Amino acid sequence: MATRESIMTTPPVTVATEEPFNDVVQRMHGDVPRGLKGVVVADTEVGDVRGMEGFYHYRQYSAIELAEQRPIEDVWRLMIDGSLPVTGDQRAAFADEVAPLRLVPAGVMSVLPAIARASEPLEGLRTALSLAAADRGMRPNIDIDAAQRRADALFLCAITPTLLTALHRLGVGSEPIAPRDDLGYAANYLWMMTGRLPLVEHARAVEQYLISTVDHGFNASTFTARVVASTGADLGACITAAIGALSGPLHGGAPSRALALLDQIGTPERIDEIVRPMIVDGAKIMGFGHPVYKTEDPRSVMLREVARRLAGGDGAIDGGSASFVGFAEQVEASVLRLLDELKPGRNLHTNVEFYAGVVMEICGIPRSMFTPTFASSRVIGWCANVLEQAADNKIIRPSARYVGSPPPQTVPPLSVW
Amino acid sequence: MATRESIMTTPPVTVATEEPFNDVVQRMHGDVPRGLKGVVVADTEVGDVRGMEGFYHYRQYSAIELAEQRPIEDVWRLMIDGSLPVTGDQRAAFADEVAPLRLVPAGVMSVLPAIARASEPLEGLRTALSLAAADRGMRPNIDIDAAQRRADALFLCAITPTLLTALHRLGVGSEPIAPRDDLGYAANYLWMMTGRLPLVEHARAVEQYLISTVDHGFNASTFTARVVASTGADLGACITAAIGALSGPLHGGAPSRALALLDQIGTPERIDEIVRPMIVDGAKIMGFGHPVYKTEDPRSVMLREVARRLAGGDGAIDGGSASFVGFAEQVEASVLRLLDELKPGRNLHTNVEFYAGVVMEICGIPRSMFTPTFASSRVIGWCANVLEQAADNKIIRPSARYVGSPPPQTVPPLSVW
Repeated sequence: MATRESIMTTPPVTVATEEPFNDVVQRMHGDVPRGLKGVVVADTEVGDVRGMEGFYHYRQYSAIELAEQRPIEDVWRLMIDGSLPVTGDQRAAFADEVAPLRLVPAGVMSVLPAIARASEPLEGLRTALSLAAADRGMRPNIDIDAAQRRADALFLCAITPTLLTALHRLGVGSEPIAPRDDLGYAANYLWMMTGRLPLVEHARAVEQYLISTVDHGFNASTFTARVVASTGADLGACITAAIGALSGPLHGGAPSRALALLDQIGTPERIDEIVRPMIVDGAKIMGFGHPVYKTEDPRSVMLREVARRLAGGDGAIDGGSASFVGFAEQVEASVLRLLDELKPGRNLHTNVEFYAGVVMEICGIPRSMFTPTFASSRVIGWCANVLEQAADNKIIRPSARYVGSPPPQTVPPLSVW
Repeated sequence: MATRESIMTTPPVTVATEEPFNDVVQRMHGDVPRGLKGVVVADTEVGDVRGMEGFYHYRQYSAIELAEQRPIEDVWRLMIDGSLPVTGDQRAAFADEVAPLRLVPAGVMSVLPAIARASEPLEGLRTALSLAAADRGMRPNIDIDAAQRRADALFLCAITPTLLTALHRLGVGSEPIAPRDDLGYAANYLWMMTGRLPLVEHARAVEQYLISTVDHGFNASTFTARVVASTGADLGACITAAIGALSGPLHGGAPSRALALLDQIGTPERIDEIVRPMIVDGAKIMGFGHPVYKTEDPRSVMLREVARRLAGGDGAIDGGSASFVGFAEQVEASVLRLLDELKPGRNLHTNVEFYAGVVMEICGIPRSMFTPTFASSRVIGWCANVLEQAADNKIIRPSARYVGSPPPQTVPPLSVW
């Protein structure tokens, strides 16, 4: 298998043009790092992550600045149409276009109870969105124009929160709640989930979290969406596949895991006794460390501020939140101190999961909906990537090296045929 | 973008080890060919395609030899368990294990009419299989052992033909037909599709086609399945994603397209007048040419023999089939002659689509079920690849190069905020 070192010694590849390309490259064992780590497989204008700088961006704008200054509909427009609205009319036009798309078609709604009986919300979304795409009659991307692909993308982004909240409510024995097109995206999301109008502060905090998770480089689910898109398949096929990839524990993350650690610790006095043996044993401390960021995760920095805003000072909600956020900050500080003591030089920080869980918990999102909430905004980033892939496409079809017993072996006869 | 030529001049990559790997490789723009063409991304023991030799194999056996000598259950066991049965008892044990798995769970069956109303069979399979995986309570591959992953794989492979035939029948206004565990895989497939016991010759011909399409290198759907598997997700997520990739017109192929050409030509006298202008205009001639095979497609060679067997000599079925196969062979010969005359040196041959369509048509499979029939056996290859990925996993997460406007631009204020 390719290792980190192997790429350093890969010789230049010389291709004898009379031989077919695939055969030559295969014969030469043109390895790349395992898991394609660090391998540039595409050009993109959707965005990027700069791990060394603790910075990521959507198109040309800092994602964090967008989360601080704009509603998610503006960011959605940026991702799908390529530009932020700069006038109120532009903003209203996009918001007015997407709000009615929140309604789930009747042919899909009628099946949601059966899906919810069988599925957790994210699995259920995989099924329901696949059905919704077919119900809409989505055709392969390669057979339709950019305007139709855009319309398909807006539809999938708009119904995802409705599907997820309906599946959640059905799963806990409640009736789904219809979307309200007089509410913004985040307020409507909380409305459909709880059946109560959320506090403005909660809706805004959740909206900032949602904006911060719209896109984040060529992660496994985004890459999955682009591989499926490269076959010319419809938007529904691409996004269904990406949902499946997000459900993988090695990818999707789970903000609820970081909260489970807070629960386990319980009180500040127990931080050391709980966490120290975990670190000594080499256990992963949920909510800490990131494969790309070597600085603080910029999402974590922003969400810590959001949590503080919810807990006290301007926009303080209640005393319970204040003590919860304070406890989370104590845990953060103590774990970082322990990591520095026991694993010096590792340069670990809280990641997006840690304060995302804190913020969602305060805003009343049940833990079973943490990862689905992540999916509800990430679908916008997936769609932006699929549209980019469809606009300038080549099928993604790598090679593998066969390392089994050498063929052909004669097929053995069956002793009793 | 990388072109076929660009890899020839790619310099050796030197990595300064103190810098994080991703950043270095990204900064150096470590390009690979676009679409990852010819790039070896994994080691595999599942099988391989040798495009120059016109040869492909499943594990250590020629796929064509397997199709000639074994039933599909033996090949299924080879792909999932790693070895062919060599005794009758071994064969019976596997067949007896998988036959009862053909039954679709009630919670899924009850939803199939609604899925069929909204979906073509392959789209419907994407939805129904996603639901079936959830209904079974499939857990992430990374959280279960190899025995449980194997059980999940057998379940998905076994229910796929049942789901597809049920969706087909519901789609044309008929009732689904329950599987019969006293029939072999292929005979049962035709039984569930038509409600009639098939001729032995038809069942065997379809079985040989199914065996020949179980696996075929790292195509886009197989790669998709492995990318999703690399996140640790469950088998259902992986196979649902692969179905989506297969639905892309640039990947799945469509044996019905080759038949549509035969229909369009109609009689041997019209071959030249129909096909010559198509070739002159640069139109793709469906059923001819393959990106990997530079020889005859070995599947085409085998299926031509199967078609001849169905048409005449031993096992002849009827005069209509004989004239249909004869016509197909005339078209093949004439198109190859025209291609040689008009596009000399391109070395084109019929591909798997051409005689696959002929064989399925003779065996009574409706054209809308050609690509779904392909999917019903390919799921075995996908599962074999997912199990291999899960057994020795690393998340597949490449990089992209940002080529948009340089960030960060200040987020503009809204003129009316």
